Amino acid sequence: MTVLATIAGTATAGTLYGIGVGPGDIRYMTLRAAGLVQSVDVIAFFAKRGLQGNARGIVAPLLAAGREELRLEYPVTNEIPTDHPSYKEQIGRFYEASMDAIAALLRQGKSVGLLAEGDPFFYGSFMHIWRRLDTLFPIEVVPGVTGMSGAWSRANAPISWGDDVLTVLPGTLDEAQLTRRLGDTEAAVIMKVGKNLAKIRRAVTAAGLLERAIYVVRGTMPEQRIMKLSECHEEVAPYFSMVLIPGQGRRL
Amino acid sequence: MTVLATIAGTATAGTLYGIGVGPGDIRYMTLRAAGLVQSVDVIAFFAKRGLQGNARGIVAPLLAAGREELRLEYPVTNEIPTDHPSYKEQIGRFYEASMDAIAALLRQGKSVGLLAEGDPFFYGSFMHIWRRLDTLFPIEVVPGVTGMSGAWSRANAPISWGDDVLTVLPGTLDEAQLTRRLGDTEAAVIMKVGKNLAKIRRAVTAAGLLERAIYVVRGTMPEQRIMKLSECHEEVAPYFSMVLIPGQGRRL
Repeated sequence: MTVLATIAGTATAGTLYGIGVGPGDIRYMTLRAAGLVQSVDVIAFFAKRGLQGNARGIVAPLLAAGREELRLEYPVTNEIPTDHPSYKEQIGRFYEASMDAIAALLRQGKSVGLLAEGDPFFYGSFMHIWRRLDTLFPIEVVPGVTGMSGAWSRANAPISWGDDVLTVLPGTLDEAQLTRRLGDTEAAVIMKVGKNLAKIRRAVTAAGLLERAIYVVRGTMPEQRIMKLSECHEEVAPYFSMVLIPGQGRRL
Repeated sequence: MTVLATIAGTATAGTLYGIGVGPGDIRYMTLRAAGLVQSVDVIAFFAKRGLQGNARGIVAPLLAAGREELRLEYPVTNEIPTDHPSYKEQIGRFYEASMDAIAALLRQGKSVGLLAEGDPFFYGSFMHIWRRLDTLFPIEVVPGVTGMSGAWSRANAPISWGDDVLTVLPGTLDEAQLTRRLGDTEAAVIMKVGKNLAKIRRAVTAAGLLERAIYVVRGTMPEQRIMKLSECHEEVAPYFSMVLIPGQGRRL
């Protein structure tokens, strides 16, 4: 075995792995994640209806033919607002069924690697499975490079300096909240941009930060786009979009 | 070459690499970081006087004997407050000299890998070199798993759910600021704990969050310690300590 493979290690029977696969570029997977993707009995992953699944796509070069896979397909994603009762009911049932499918595999003594984009414990769907199985099976959570780290690295934009406060804001917050919070932090990352892009642009502008704001689409992925938010005239952002407000703290 | 080594790739002459080495456990280095650590002409790293250098220690298993190294030793760390003119002057001179040493190697056509704990663009010393050399030499920044991702993974504490706002706070902020900001966020990570531990405990308590707060020392490193903040009675924390306030957002 090479030194990298030795460090990466392999999977243990009957264990669930939450595998952070990083922001998109496969080179930003950790050694541990790569070792597990190559060795778990079953690769499990979430996917939107009709799509390959983003995390599954990232790890594809590490999957030999014939590996056992468990595809977990969301019944809804953003067709229904997340605070709608029907969303909660459908998605809750989906996570229950996903949990059952994974538990059945673990009970057979198989190791299961559930892929997570970025870091599993940072706004990850994995958490909804984890909380159902945490006390029932051995679980190892493998941290990953977050999407935001990938984005600010590629944007050539150090995000936080010295004593900067960094605030991570879901773009789903209402405009007044966004504006207020952007005015009360030195650095910010706005996630979940999607349909909220026009509102986010208004909030960033109201907070006087438009010239500093960077818009990153699919950072580190092949389709990556990076521009000043002031130069972006779209109304809706693709999935995996982010707005960065780099801090301006202590330069030494 | 194995598939992992092929993905990791190698270094290019005359290029500076900001290599995020992750939170401590070498398994959480990215493939790209590992490939560069093994292939750059010179491994550069920051270290405190008399110590090995934390990042250098993390990557040690990947360094064959006889590799060229550039040790950059801080003239001061926390003996002088960071807002003291003497601190700024000494540390500014140090970064200038470090930049000169690195630039000289790059001009010789060597590739230089400057190690950064966690992620280079997230409160990293690397940023002070980057801003001096950004327009002068080719630079590649390799994002890494942050110390906070390592900490919450090992603490078994998903940090942010649904529409949680996550605030990253330097423990150097004054007590009133810390208390106010802790009361205005769903989830928080307090970095730079060290001498600020007692003040942080008071602020967390005042914000009504003591029972939810987790104290993590050297997360993912061999000396890792994790406990409830309410059960920690130390006055000063070791380097690489953090306080986590996990969010309680939408469970699905």
